[in-house]
Formats: sequence, C-alpha cells, structure tokens
Amino acid sequence: MVDTEVRTNKKIVQRRYLSGPVDVSDMEVVMSDTVKLGLPPGSTAVIVKNLYISIDPYCLNFMARKDASGSTTSPLSVMIGYGVSKVVVSGHKDLKAGDLVWGMIGWEEYSLISDPDFLIKINHPELPLSYYTGILGMPGMTAYIGFYELCAPKKGEFVFVSAASGAVGQLVGQFAKMAGCYVVGSAGSDEKVNLLMEKFGFDDAFNYKKEQDLNAALKRCFPEGIDIYFENVGGAMLDAVLLNMRLGGRIAACGMISQYNLEKLEGVHNLMNIITKRLRMEGFVVSDHYSKYRKFEELIVQHLKSKEIAYVEDIAEGLESAPAALVGLFKGQNVGKQLVVVARE
Amino acid sequence: MVDTEVRTNKKIVQRRYLSGPVDVSDMEVVMSDTVKLGLPPGSTAVIVKNLYISIDPYCLNFMARKDASGSTTSPLSVMIGYGVSKVVVSGHKDLKAGDLVWGMIGWEEYSLISDPDFLIKINHPELPLSYYTGILGMPGMTAYIGFYELCAPKKGEFVFVSAASGAVGQLVGQFAKMAGCYVVGSAGSDEKVNLLMEKFGFDDAFNYKKEQDLNAALKRCFPEGIDIYFENVGGAMLDAVLLNMRLGGRIAACGMISQYNLEKLEGVHNLMNIITKRLRMEGFVVSDHYSKYRKFEELIVQHLKSKEIAYVEDIAEGLESAPAALVGLFKGQNVGKQLVVVARE
Repeated sequence: MVDTEVRTNKKIVQRRYLSGPVDVSDMEVVMSDTVKLGLPPGSTAVIVKNLYISIDPYCLNFMARKDASGSTTSPLSVMIGYGVSKVVVSGHKDLKAGDLVWGMIGWEEYSLISDPDFLIKINHPELPLSYYTGILGMPGMTAYIGFYELCAPKKGEFVFVSAASGAVGQLVGQFAKMAGCYVVGSAGSDEKVNLLMEKFGFDDAFNYKKEQDLNAALKRCFPEGIDIYFENVGGAMLDAVLLNMRLGGRIAACGMISQYNLEKLEGVHNLMNIITKRLRMEGFVVSDHYSKYRKFEELIVQHLKSKEIAYVEDIAEGLESAPAALVGLFKGQNVGKQLVVVARE
Repeated sequence: MVDTEVRTNKKIVQRRYLSGPVDVSDMEVVMSDTVKLGLPPGSTAVIVKNLYISIDPYCLNFMARKDASGSTTSPLSVMIGYGVSKVVVSGHKDLKAGDLVWGMIGWEEYSLISDPDFLIKINHPELPLSYYTGILGMPGMTAYIGFYELCAPKKGEFVFVSAASGAVGQLVGQFAKMAGCYVVGSAGSDEKVNLLMEKFGFDDAFNYKKEQDLNAALKRCFPEGIDIYFENVGGAMLDAVLLNMRLGGRIAACGMISQYNLEKLEGVHNLMNIITKRLRMEGFVVSDHYSKYRKFEELIVQHLKSKEIAYVEDIAEGLESAPAALVGLFKGQNVGKQLVVVARE
C-alpha cells in the first residue's frame, strides 16, 4: 500500500447524556480528529465523504441514557444519523470509489462504515442528492409504509396528519390526496399552514399553537370524524384525535415528537376510544421495510419528475450548524425537511 | 284476542346519571310495574321471561350521561344488559313460546323485545343455561375473537391476561394454553390467583394489589417480555405492560375496567413503546362478530363436555341482588363470572 492520505475530520460529538430538552451545549464541534483514507488489506469496510446529514427527531434516541440492556452511544462519541455520502475508499464488493449512497453515518466529514451492507446506492443522482435525506430516503419511506401499508386508505376517507409540514407529513398529505382522501394537517406556524394549503394541496390545515382546544379544532375540520391519523406528535394531540376518530379508524404511529424532550411523558387519557370505536393503532420502524425501497424510489422519482409531488427542504449550511438545526427541529423552527450540507461534492 | 294475562314485573331502574363510582343508590328496585303477556296483532316483537342476567363492566356505559349526540338511557329507565331468557309470547317468525334465547334484555322479570332479530337461540340447553351469560355468551365470544382473531397467537409466545379470573380472562388463559403459549394472569386477590393456577392452568399469576411495582412484577413473570397482552383493565397496568412488550407484540383491547369509574381518566405514559417495539393495539366490540357465534358455540360446547375447559361462576340470587353485584364487580368482589338469577325457569 502506498502512503495513505490523511485528512482532518471535523465532527460533532455528544458531550453528555440528555437529562432534559436537547440543547446545543449537549454537542460540541471537534476539529482535531483526522482520518486515513485507506483500509487494511482484506477489509470489507468503506470510507465515505459525507455530503448531507439528515436532522430527524429520532437522533435523540442515541443521546438518551439507555438502560443496561440497550446502551448505544456513550458521551463524547460522534453523533449519528442518516445522511448522503460519496464512497472514497471501498473494500466492499458492491461499492466503488465515487458511488453515491445514503444510510447511517456520523456527523463528520468522513465516516468509516464497517458494515456497508446497510448503505443504499443512489440510483437517481440527476435529482438533488439532498432528497435522499428526505423524500427519497428514510422519511419518504416512512410516509409510504405508514400510509399505504398500515393505514390502507380508501377513497373518500378522512385523513389527519400532525407535524404535517415536516419531512414525513408533507408526503403523507400528498399521498392522501392521490388516494382520493380528504386530508387536513396541523403545524406550528401560519407560514407552515400556508405551505400545507398552497404547496402541498391539503384540503384544510390549522396552526395548533393558535387553538385553545385541539378537540374543538378537530371537530371543526372533521365534522364527520377521522378515519386515518398519521401520528407524528403524541401527547395532547393524540388525546384529541382519539375523541374524533370514527368507527374502524387506523392510527399509524410513526413518531411522537412532542414526547422526546419531556422528562415526564404526558399521559394519554382517551384510550377507551380504541375499544368503543374499534380502532387499530400500530407502530412501525421504517428500517424493517427497506426491502421495498427500490419500488418506492422509482415511484417517487416518477412523481417528482412529473411534478405531481412537491417537496420543501430547510437547508442549513455547514457541519457546525447541525447542533442548532437539531435543537430547532424540536422548537418547530424548520420549515420543511431539515438537513445540513457538509459538502456539495 | 282473549283477555291477556297481566303479571307484576319487578325491575331495577337507574335513578340518576353516574357522576362518580357506581353505587347501589344509583339504582332502585321498582315493584309496581306490570306486564301484559300479549302483543297487538301483527307485532313482530316477543315477550321473554328473564332467567339470568349478566353483570358486566359495560353496563356502566348505559348509566353515564352521554354527550348530545349519543344519549341512550335517561334516568328512571330500566337497567339493560345481556341475559338468558325464555320466550313467553312471540310475534316473530323464528321464535315460539318456550324457546330459550340470550341477548340484550332489561333488568326485570319480563322484557318486551321489539327487535328479536338480536336474540340468539340457545342450541345446548343440556348445559347450565347460566353459561350463556358467560362462557357461551358475550364474554366467551369476546375471549374467542380477541385472542384468536386480533392476537393471532403462535406456539411458544408469551401471553399476559389482566383481570384474568373474570368472565373473559379465565377463557383467554385457557385458549392460550391450548395454543401452546406461556400464559400469566393478574387478579386482585390471592384466592383468584390460586384459581388461575389450580383451576385454569395458568403458568403463573400474581395479585396486583400486593405488587409495589407492576413493571417489576411483569419483568419477574416475563424475563423475555410479552408477545400478547389481552387488555381488560387499562391505566397503570397498561403502562407497565407497554414497558414489557416484545418487538412485534399485539395488544387486544377488550376493556379497561380500571377506567370506567374514574372521573378523570388515568394517563398512559409509555405509548412511545408502540413505535419502538412495532406494537399493534387494536380495540374491538364483540357484537361486530356475532356472525361467527355458531362456530364458537359448538367449539366451546365440545370443550366443556370433554372437560378441557374449566369455568367458574359467581352467582347472586334474585333480581334485587343485581345492583350490589354490579358495584361489587368494580371492587373485584366477584370470583369468576358474575351473574344474577332472576328465575330458574
């Protein structure tokens, strides 16, 4: 092996376990690390250069102190999440330098991926690569699996989506319209509500921060009740939704962003409605469903190219902006899918 | 029509809407009513003589003040619930005097059933007729549908049943053993716990009133976690169960007896587990499934005759005992299926 090139590798590390709402001070930019752009002989790992990192609620899962059986990340380890990357060095038979991929990476300039089987090759680099952190990546698959497989929508049904302008919600709303449903979204600002109506074609939308009574807001938007709820927030919104579900309704539980940051989780009081209304509430984790990714990717690419689907991103520049972007996500500061540009190529 | 016989018709009426835990003073025995044992020409109604009435948690549904859209019972109307009866006068083509039936009746000696299509004929009067308030009636069907159809049990799975010595729970536990599952039940007294182990063949059982920490009790009973939870109680037990469910677990939500009597419903805090563990929680109402009743009836009759299934009843004598039996149900005073004998034939 010739002398291996060594580069600096700026990264964001976690400084401590979370004990309350996530704060930028929980993370730190480390400038002093380096990476060798080479692999030992026989290695099946790859080294990737990271282009975009995806800022998602689940990032907090890695930051909390886990119980004895489930510990994953210890403080001062690099933050992890989904991202879009370019292969720089490959020991893996299916990947070569220059390949574009998406999957789990570190919040750093270069990541060593010891098990590249979990990386997914990008088949449509003619589209913005950043889309693979969102509509063509994990959040897009989440919308697709949750809506079509768990909710089994029928034409004319009433669909409610919370956190509707986010990476997942904006797509669920558009899927619902394609399925012939009536769809209402909630979001946390008037700007986002406008986006839902003007850009994504929701039939109705409301700013939950301006509603005194979520139950009343839902009754106003759904005088006949809700058939399908795509659950992204949990807590008080779930309680209000349960009161407004119709017989035989389905709740796809994808996330509960309102609950990630609470030390004492909010109680949900109206679960009796699950019985009286014969509801089905089902949780899912999208990584169980990646075998269907290629079918999904082609479908969405086609919709994007024909402009049947709109998509809005909130792009922060530079790895250093990632901690603030994550904190902003839980404050609802992003408009559209939040991501961070690490490098453009 | 010849002179129609008139009989006194003792009944239990509701005195007021519930505003707290149900109390015997919410109901009243009325001795002064009469019933004419005759029908106008052309009527398709039937008059039945009531033999057994079933005391079930859902009876409270009829006693609560409903919102404007859903009001059913007004105070001073007769209490209603399931029961076993004998047809005395019939205007209905499929029923004749002397037929034995079960279905919704009043808590009274005789009931006029204006829509007898909802009555189900009793095909096996050689078994105790009271069984049609329980193992061969609505609670039995509830156990059958909830366990087999919603939970889809597989051999070797871990099953937890709350309120396990009650009408539904005792049967779910026995179904679980037949399906090759490991089954644990909870109940509210040592006597009931013994019944679960000695009579119904549960693998393990605990008295929830003696446990400081329900989560710890479940961890002790299910070191590998719970695949199937048959939910009869709600509240704190559901919260503890959510912490102990395994990946891909199923929760059949049949009832939440702990919640019927609370003015302010308990919050359930651990719903995030529905997502992280990919759980499915599904509510059902057994009356949606009565098309499968005959298949169920034959199966259970066969199991009863071969003594593969055990069944325990708690029988109160006389219509006057019904209010105290209902109140006792919510205090867990019954051991086995609670019912009231109105008349033995």
